[in-house]
Amino acid sequence: MTDHSARLAALRDQLARQRLDGFVVPLTDEHLSEYVGGYAQRLAWLTGFGGSAGTAVILADRAAIFTDGRYTIQVREQVDAADWQFVGIPEISPADWLAEHAPAGARIGYDPWLHTAAWVEEAARALAGRDAVLVAVDANPVDAIWTDRPAPSPAPLAVQDDAVAGASSASKRAAIADWLVGRGADAVVVSALDSIAWLLNVRGGDVDHTPVALSFAILHADGATDLYVAPEKVRDAVRQHLGNSVRIHDRAGFAAALGGFAGRRVALDPKGAVTAIAAALTAGGATLVAERDPILLAKAIKNPAEVAGHRAASLRDGAALTRFLRWVEATCPAGTETELSAAARLLAFRQEGGLLRDTSFATISATGAHGAIPHYHVTPESNAPILPGQLFLIDSGGQYADGTTDVTRVMPIGAPTAEMRDRFTRVLRAHIAIATAVFPDGTVGGHIDAFARRPLWEAGLDYGHGTGHGIGAYLSVHEGPQRIAAPNYPGGQALEPLRAGMMLSNEPGYYKAGAYGIRIENLVLTVPRAIAGGDPDRTMLGFDTLTLAPIERTLIDPTLLTDSERAWVDAYHATVSSALSPLLPAEDASWLAGKCAPLAAA
Amino acid sequence: MTDHSARLAALRDQLARQRLDGFVVPLTDEHLSEYVGGYAQRLAWLTGFGGSAGTAVILADRAAIFTDGRYTIQVREQVDAADWQFVGIPEISPADWLAEHAPAGARIGYDPWLHTAAWVEEAARALAGRDAVLVAVDANPVDAIWTDRPAPSPAPLAVQDDAVAGASSASKRAAIADWLVGRGADAVVVSALDSIAWLLNVRGGDVDHTPVALSFAILHADGATDLYVAPEKVRDAVRQHLGNSVRIHDRAGFAAALGGFAGRRVALDPKGAVTAIAAALTAGGATLVAERDPILLAKAIKNPAEVAGHRAASLRDGAALTRFLRWVEATCPAGTETELSAAARLLAFRQEGGLLRDTSFATISATGAHGAIPHYHVTPESNAPILPGQLFLIDSGGQYADGTTDVTRVMPIGAPTAEMRDRFTRVLRAHIAIATAVFPDGTVGGHIDAFARRPLWEAGLDYGHGTGHGIGAYLSVHEGPQRIAAPNYPGGQALEPLRAGMMLSNEPGYYKAGAYGIRIENLVLTVPRAIAGGDPDRTMLGFDTLTLAPIERTLIDPTLLTDSERAWVDAYHATVSSALSPLLPAEDASWLAGKCAPLAAA
Repeated sequence: MTDHSARLAALRDQLARQRLDGFVVPLTDEHLSEYVGGYAQRLAWLTGFGGSAGTAVILADRAAIFTDGRYTIQVREQVDAADWQFVGIPEISPADWLAEHAPAGARIGYDPWLHTAAWVEEAARALAGRDAVLVAVDANPVDAIWTDRPAPSPAPLAVQDDAVAGASSASKRAAIADWLVGRGADAVVVSALDSIAWLLNVRGGDVDHTPVALSFAILHADGATDLYVAPEKVRDAVRQHLGNSVRIHDRAGFAAALGGFAGRRVALDPKGAVTAIAAALTAGGATLVAERDPILLAKAIKNPAEVAGHRAASLRDGAALTRFLRWVEATCPAGTETELSAAARLLAFRQEGGLLRDTSFATISATGAHGAIPHYHVTPESNAPILPGQLFLIDSGGQYADGTTDVTRVMPIGAPTAEMRDRFTRVLRAHIAIATAVFPDGTVGGHIDAFARRPLWEAGLDYGHGTGHGIGAYLSVHEGPQRIAAPNYPGGQALEPLRAGMMLSNEPGYYKAGAYGIRIENLVLTVPRAIAGGDPDRTMLGFDTLTLAPIERTLIDPTLLTDSERAWVDAYHATVSSALSPLLPAEDASWLAGKCAPLAAA
Repeated sequence: MTDHSARLAALRDQLARQRLDGFVVPLTDEHLSEYVGGYAQRLAWLTGFGGSAGTAVILADRAAIFTDGRYTIQVREQVDAADWQFVGIPEISPADWLAEHAPAGARIGYDPWLHTAAWVEEAARALAGRDAVLVAVDANPVDAIWTDRPAPSPAPLAVQDDAVAGASSASKRAAIADWLVGRGADAVVVSALDSIAWLLNVRGGDVDHTPVALSFAILHADGATDLYVAPEKVRDAVRQHLGNSVRIHDRAGFAAALGGFAGRRVALDPKGAVTAIAAALTAGGATLVAERDPILLAKAIKNPAEVAGHRAASLRDGAALTRFLRWVEATCPAGTETELSAAARLLAFRQEGGLLRDTSFATISATGAHGAIPHYHVTPESNAPILPGQLFLIDSGGQYADGTTDVTRVMPIGAPTAEMRDRFTRVLRAHIAIATAVFPDGTVGGHIDAFARRPLWEAGLDYGHGTGHGIGAYLSVHEGPQRIAAPNYPGGQALEPLRAGMMLSNEPGYYKAGAYGIRIENLVLTVPRAIAGGDPDRTMLGFDTLTLAPIERTLIDPTLLTDSERAWVDAYHATVSSALSPLLPAEDASWLAGKCAPLAAA
């Protein structure tokens, strides 16, 4: 019996002890985080699955693991088909599956600290058809059998300087307090870790790639805030920074504190907070005010200091990436490098800048057919040599105190084919269509997404992911609420109005299964655009490109570009070269100048 | 005291008799129709307002009329400000206004045959804050005082031939019956008039511009159908056409019939049916199955016979419009014609074709500044002379047995200004961007809308309406569920997947308040597009343009078009000329040939 088979058997024994006929194991934490700490990696521990999104459902006689199209192959490689049925979502949801397979009258357990109320409602409705019930457990049965479960990280909190944050925590808290007063609410419970970090101008080290600390916050209508966090992580400097109006409590006391709002109106984001929080508030007599986390929009609209910080981070990040791209061109055609060695080389270039704190996500270093898997994650098992004739795709980012970066470039290893150049040039046209877009203030991201897709659609092609996501300021690499994607994007409708100050990625792509992948990703800042002769009562917006790195010219077929598209490439490259050259060794600067020379006219 | 003041006073007396403190008067009928018969024109009778959309709310001490931006001016001209407060929607809804003005504890009446359940929920929630209640009335108090209320139209039903409909009613009913079986439902209640007309292959004459009959239908899982309609409207030919499995009942018996489904599962569209229907079903012991009207999508996807019929209608409609455009060019610069005389002239050209049954909506004949009001409705009071220097906009359509048309053209009266030509050419580029769009099967209309807006956005311009609406086959000129508009369009999100066979309008515009309006509208058919070299597993769609009429060349600045845009215009005009010439008198054909000659190269 394998380790994972033994764990599954142990879990079934534990479920019997807890008088449950089944249990649901999602991959998230009490904060609904995208990346979670080791202590919350229950799905990986139970099944062996190493992807970033998935859910397991365990019944007495069968078990299933649910993953999306990104992980169709990986889940079959990592998880034992003898124990687990593989199910694709969103085609079949765990609720659908339970509705088919749960025994009549079954008690199916779930951990209310790991699910939203909407999830519970959907699953309960599905089970009702089987006369089965969903049962919130007090103690997670996986934790009961996970004897070597990692402890939560002990990383201390750090102060994010007001000058870098661009606004004091006190002023941010005052604005949210005003928002509470406007809604007649007494307090708001904030459970999203990046919202808390932004609100308090602190950062942490409890989660991979995202500088946040495991904590909860309750902000009151007078601006005073209760912060629930392991007290030993809050050193003197942070305590002094937070001041008297931020009261520090042990994180373990949070659940009990939710019971203390009898007769009060408490705002809570039903989509952003786990159901246990709402249940505890309600049980304590509070009236829930369902409102989106008020920090989401405030955090998404960057202030001038955050933009300036991001520009500084982009400079040093672009210099590191440029050195790496030169290294790829010079070194990889020999065929001796691999996806892992290349990722290590890029990390080293970033580290040489001296200010890198972390990568902003696990670097996607993907050559050849691996590039066609948009979220490919290289492991020692999957690690492939980088070989002539391939396209090599590198999607990576850095966490710096002044900004979070995210950039994708593609390099040919040797000479690219005509098809590769055609596809790359179409993706470049897609990228330029977003970079140059002009639209009325408040246009939703789903309204402009097709600008990027048109050059691909015209050739009968497309890409199966969104065009752009929000990004934090030394915070999450993926940040809402805005995105650029199909209006009916399965990952969440792209219906948030775009506003000046929002930062987004611009990352169209093209993927030929089994052959190669292409993606060109820069970050952009939403800015006002004054247009002479336009309707005077319309505020128009556009994008300023923030990311600085050359777009590989040998992959561009200039004859497929319009004059204005070619002019955009030339202007962008002129900016890249003049901005990065001062930061580069002479040989790198010289190489960059060649890469950034104007394209030949058609 | 004016007539309308006296009516308002009489209504207040009637409300007192019905023990109501207020009442809501919408502009719709029991079928939630866009256009309603005279018997349902309660809003116009009570207030004098002649627009196509609005709501009145009457309290004892104040009354308000709610209209959208289209009617800001008109409502003030037609409705007495001494009696009525003017309120703009969607800024303030009737529910918002009631929440502010309803007396504490008030009983506010509404007619449950004229509102959706969602409206009732919203209004009831708003009133709850005042401890006021919403009360469904058994008898509409307006009807009690409207002594000369028109009787419902006596127009008989007519058979829509199966050959023109492209499918027999029996086959349509069998498909819906299969749908019911798939959902475990016993019956579906259909209250939308065009759904009933499509289902039964009948047409009526009870509503202006839309050939439908006032009726309700209940279709059972075995395909048998109960039709509730004034029996005297069903003549022998229709009775024979409907056959034995369509049982005809008096329309007055419908409400009682809803009580006969105890223990059965009955499908009903909660957005498409009035709340009285759901209430009657529930009161009778039925279980409601909330599903979109299953006819909506079936009706939206046109079959080959419907498409062929539409093409035939487009030919004769295009010939009439072409003759009219020549008449405008020749006659209007003299300054002796008006918006009304021009509309009459166009109607005469359409009638000369011999097959016109009705206009498909009230013709928008708008010159100069009136053109900047997208839904301008000319009346004897507003009727303006058509004068040199103006742009004249004509948006019109015909109802033919084989198709419903909708087309907009703009003509300069004399020489247009450079700004007019710039704007017109941008709108033309917008139109071409939709006409030439290629996109994956299932792309939602909100995803491609911005293709049309980009040429305007780039100049700091936009238009305040959707880009395209669905259209019926000898049915409603506005038909769902598909539309092309902003994803978050206030009139209903544009999130319906586009499918081959759907017909839509393509009608971008530009409006300069106080000066002129531009709109170029053709109807298009969604068709599969095979693209050589495209991903083999992607089905791509595009549009075939159906409408045939010249786009005024003196308003086009060819130097602003790309080569491919100019080629589109030339190819379209070549099609228009060759298709319409055989139907035209020689002088008109000759004029058209000149209008359709290739544009000068830039």
